[in-house]
Amino acid sequence: MTATSFPPARFQSFEEKADPAEVAPRLAALRAAMEKAGVDAFLIPRADAHRGESVPASEARLAYVTGFTGSAGLAVIGRERADLFVDSRYTLQAPAQTDTRLVSVHEVAGMSFDLKPFIPAGTKLAYDPWLHTPGELKTMAGRLEGHATLVPVANLVDAIWTGRPAPPAGAIEFLGHNRAGRTAGDKIADIQAQLAETGADATVLTLPESICWLFNMRGRDVPNTPFVLSFALVPQRGRPTLFLAPAKITPDLRAALQDVADIAEETELDAALGRLGASGKAVQIDPDSAPAAIAETLAGAGARLIEKRDPVLLPKSRKNAAELAGMREAHRLDGVAMAKFLHWFDMEAPAGKLTEIAIVTALEAFRREEETCLDASFDTIAGAGPNGAIVHYRVTGKTDRRLAPGEIMLVDSGAQYVSGTTDITRTMATGPASAEQKDRYTRVLKGMIAISTVRFPKGTTGAQIDALARQFLWQAGVTYNHGTGHGVGAGLGVHEGPVGIAPRYTLPLEEGNVISNEPGYYKPGEYGIRIENLLVVKQAEGFAGYLDFETLTLAPIDTRLIEPDLLTGAERDWLNAFHKRVRAEIGPLVDGAVRDWLDRATAAI
Amino acid sequence: MTATSFPPARFQSFEEKADPAEVAPRLAALRAAMEKAGVDAFLIPRADAHRGESVPASEARLAYVTGFTGSAGLAVIGRERADLFVDSRYTLQAPAQTDTRLVSVHEVAGMSFDLKPFIPAGTKLAYDPWLHTPGELKTMAGRLEGHATLVPVANLVDAIWTGRPAPPAGAIEFLGHNRAGRTAGDKIADIQAQLAETGADATVLTLPESICWLFNMRGRDVPNTPFVLSFALVPQRGRPTLFLAPAKITPDLRAALQDVADIAEETELDAALGRLGASGKAVQIDPDSAPAAIAETLAGAGARLIEKRDPVLLPKSRKNAAELAGMREAHRLDGVAMAKFLHWFDMEAPAGKLTEIAIVTALEAFRREEETCLDASFDTIAGAGPNGAIVHYRVTGKTDRRLAPGEIMLVDSGAQYVSGTTDITRTMATGPASAEQKDRYTRVLKGMIAISTVRFPKGTTGAQIDALARQFLWQAGVTYNHGTGHGVGAGLGVHEGPVGIAPRYTLPLEEGNVISNEPGYYKPGEYGIRIENLLVVKQAEGFAGYLDFETLTLAPIDTRLIEPDLLTGAERDWLNAFHKRVRAEIGPLVDGAVRDWLDRATAAI
Repeated sequence: MTATSFPPARFQSFEEKADPAEVAPRLAALRAAMEKAGVDAFLIPRADAHRGESVPASEARLAYVTGFTGSAGLAVIGRERADLFVDSRYTLQAPAQTDTRLVSVHEVAGMSFDLKPFIPAGTKLAYDPWLHTPGELKTMAGRLEGHATLVPVANLVDAIWTGRPAPPAGAIEFLGHNRAGRTAGDKIADIQAQLAETGADATVLTLPESICWLFNMRGRDVPNTPFVLSFALVPQRGRPTLFLAPAKITPDLRAALQDVADIAEETELDAALGRLGASGKAVQIDPDSAPAAIAETLAGAGARLIEKRDPVLLPKSRKNAAELAGMREAHRLDGVAMAKFLHWFDMEAPAGKLTEIAIVTALEAFRREEETCLDASFDTIAGAGPNGAIVHYRVTGKTDRRLAPGEIMLVDSGAQYVSGTTDITRTMATGPASAEQKDRYTRVLKGMIAISTVRFPKGTTGAQIDALARQFLWQAGVTYNHGTGHGVGAGLGVHEGPVGIAPRYTLPLEEGNVISNEPGYYKPGEYGIRIENLLVVKQAEGFAGYLDFETLTLAPIDTRLIEPDLLTGAERDWLNAFHKRVRAEIGPLVDGAVRDWLDRATAAI
Repeated sequence: MTATSFPPARFQSFEEKADPAEVAPRLAALRAAMEKAGVDAFLIPRADAHRGESVPASEARLAYVTGFTGSAGLAVIGRERADLFVDSRYTLQAPAQTDTRLVSVHEVAGMSFDLKPFIPAGTKLAYDPWLHTPGELKTMAGRLEGHATLVPVANLVDAIWTGRPAPPAGAIEFLGHNRAGRTAGDKIADIQAQLAETGADATVLTLPESICWLFNMRGRDVPNTPFVLSFALVPQRGRPTLFLAPAKITPDLRAALQDVADIAEETELDAALGRLGASGKAVQIDPDSAPAAIAETLAGAGARLIEKRDPVLLPKSRKNAAELAGMREAHRLDGVAMAKFLHWFDMEAPAGKLTEIAIVTALEAFRREEETCLDASFDTIAGAGPNGAIVHYRVTGKTDRRLAPGEIMLVDSGAQYVSGTTDITRTMATGPASAEQKDRYTRVLKGMIAISTVRFPKGTTGAQIDALARQFLWQAGVTYNHGTGHGVGAGLGVHEGPVGIAPRYTLPLEEGNVISNEPGYYKPGEYGIRIENLLVVKQAEGFAGYLDFETLTLAPIDTRLIEPDLLTGAERDWLNAFHKRVRAEIGPLVDGAVRDWLDRATAAI
């Protein structure tokens, strides 16, 4: 195949679907709704009630009002002014998508900042309590004390949204025991034991990853992650109740859940919370993810709130044998696609005609040759040359860049297979690299090997090992401004808590955790380097009380960018053994020119 | 000199000054005092009001009542029972010192634990509010809620203590500008600027290291650390007041402080706190170190309390050029003493006659040859063979062990010089070592070199780099159960916060911090290994925004215990360069056989 012969990408779009001309009438309508509600300003976060990285079209309120389609942001619409806050990923995209005559775009480090400079004294600042957590509101109220008042309202955007898409109502699938490894009943019993220990009569789950894992179900409500959007009420004793959109409640669903949970329409959640409150129950909610609406309803009805981490997160992070078998299978399938893709890339790049979009499209096509590939696990980051230095770059028709021979290409991508979730970054040479590029690439690789090979006692946290990945870059006076690794779901979200590798991850790593290992180096305006494998935490063989990592990812690491003198013998041994394993596992699954390429790409150095 | 020809140790005693026979009458007297005060039990912590590792004899209440002289512990004396809680360092010593028929000794991991099992329901548990912090009491009260009541009382031990030593009243010395590097006035202005930023009208300082640093003064109130015990009240504007024992208030003292602070007797502190409260001031106290008595007096009088870290700790941790010059000088002096000591040790050990006490005495004698050596900075830890595996071992007449040829000797010691404070650990061979011993020693050394050579961006914490010291031990499935490093004062405490190298140190390392670097390995019942140098954090030359370490310690590291094949070329280069520097700096200061020995001990490997 040539660079242009792939079917169009289906998982990823390269448009920025926004029309700045629509901002003016929508702002006007929203301000009329604010007037009617008697408030002076309204908050529009990019969130839905489930805190996901992706939201369904029916929840894309920020995009509807401002035109901005990025994955994080907050707008404050006042009577006179409108401000849109985005992080550094979106400082170019946001002004291009909104009407900058009407909306001021500001770059912020995160969405928790002081709003005071942007709203007049005495403002009644309205918010939708389903879209903010108690923790967020508490921080905001503290900062605004004496300056503005926070007022909960029914969402004002919903009141003016013409042509709002219907909420997602895709089919719900249940995992077989071969894939889930544990029954929903067993998982629920564990959560109930946790509630008993905490002294909670019940908990309300709001994160789709928690609910999908607990009930062994998957859906297609949002892109990239097989989520079912729903709420669940889990009592300390007795059957949980799952609250769903009516369209999702089918006879098949009832049959699948009949031994496990009661089913109710999501509009019934409020009443159920009210009943818990009326009987004075102690209800556990996660202050970092539960909507304030739930906390307020419970507290208002008389419940005692226990603020504690979602009890599903830790057990979910410890993948069981069936989940790990699925993840290994997904990585074999992904290794085949990556071998085809990297071979194709090596054949095409020297001609100098590849563009970032062509590269994304080709990679998606190679993955879709495997029929159990359901989706991309996130929009592929394909950065040619200087675009590689933009950590969360997503190519669009406007930014698409041709890859000139000699430039470095960074591709960070992943897929959702029926068997599991992948996330891989490779950085490829397209010609002779400079001494500096090889030095940086090799230091990134050394850090990535240091994490791959570390052994550590039980109780060690991701915070403790993060510097092992950075030490070689630090020695050269450089680093990367992102974590070394994040948790990855098994057929769920490609980013999941609560463990990972970065100073902020202060929980111990535990057997079965799947995390990424992705140090990098970015030279703004010139090039970017990142090398990423996924790892599983396992008992270290022969070392009682110690853990180490198994590598899941099976794709060659470009050896043309390595400065061999910088590698120790042990590092070289690791790389050669890794490549030997890739050749042994992926080689039999590819043939012809790809097989020949794989043999060359995995040759010992 | 031979092993037995040294003058007796003066800084360190090898006795356990305790007579279990005295416990019974003292317990009886204390119980009578409890009866009279109408309480059921009394808490006796090892603390004084200043939270020091050492307390003056007049504050050694725990030793007076129970006989136990260790540096950490807590007794709970009830009507019927008496319990003494100590950590693992003291599980042998405590039962030997107290009357175990009357006092039950328990091992605990730390002094914050649940007392409930040890006191009957309904107990009125009395405490001296000068000996506990608000934080400690809050935790204790939470655990005892519904079971026992905490009752503040004037100290009941003081009421029965016959022959109580007088409080210390040693002379107070003031540092010249060449040693302090900054005037007290400048330091006070900085603290006052911090108070203004916090919105505090004043702060009460209670830690002697903070007060001594702030006023550039030193004393001899406790062993090992040149502390003056006192309190200081620092207002946001105007002159601080220093509260001292009357005997310390001399004309010389008044003259030295006349431009800097007012002076008052310590009994006047209560009234001063009351005045702050009465005028409704906001007063900052450190909840982890201020006595509850101070917080209660302030709050009771109407002050608003601001709980925040002692504002002196961070500026004090950033040593200035004069302090660092003093520390470098102290390490040269200590390097001379260590060269003489290690030479002597190598000559004497093969004969098999050395004991731990002889080794401690010899080392102290070599240090005291330097007339500016004021004290040991802590009791020397001299562990022969298996005693080396006891991390905080302190030799006594009862535990003293002869060092058999072939055994490994661990010596962790330090001194207070006029110029500064040292802390060094060396582990020495006395004959052929086993392959395992060499493997472990070399892994400890590799970790110690990894810390010595790391470069890191500003903002990096000690928590982040701790694993660099452990990685090579972890790889062998072993570790050490203590931090990698602690802060060290400049002519102050050998252990000081708030920075260090361990998962609990989450503040960024900053230029001028002095910290220890002391990984180890301990095989219970067989041997212990630790190698410790002190380091200074400095700007990394040629790497903007990056920091690295300068090594202060100047003494050979025993190369006979190294397995050379385990060292990388870079590690070997570091060791050879370090030894070359030791030879260059210490060589000219010693002569004869010591000089010859030093040349051999620092030869390149």
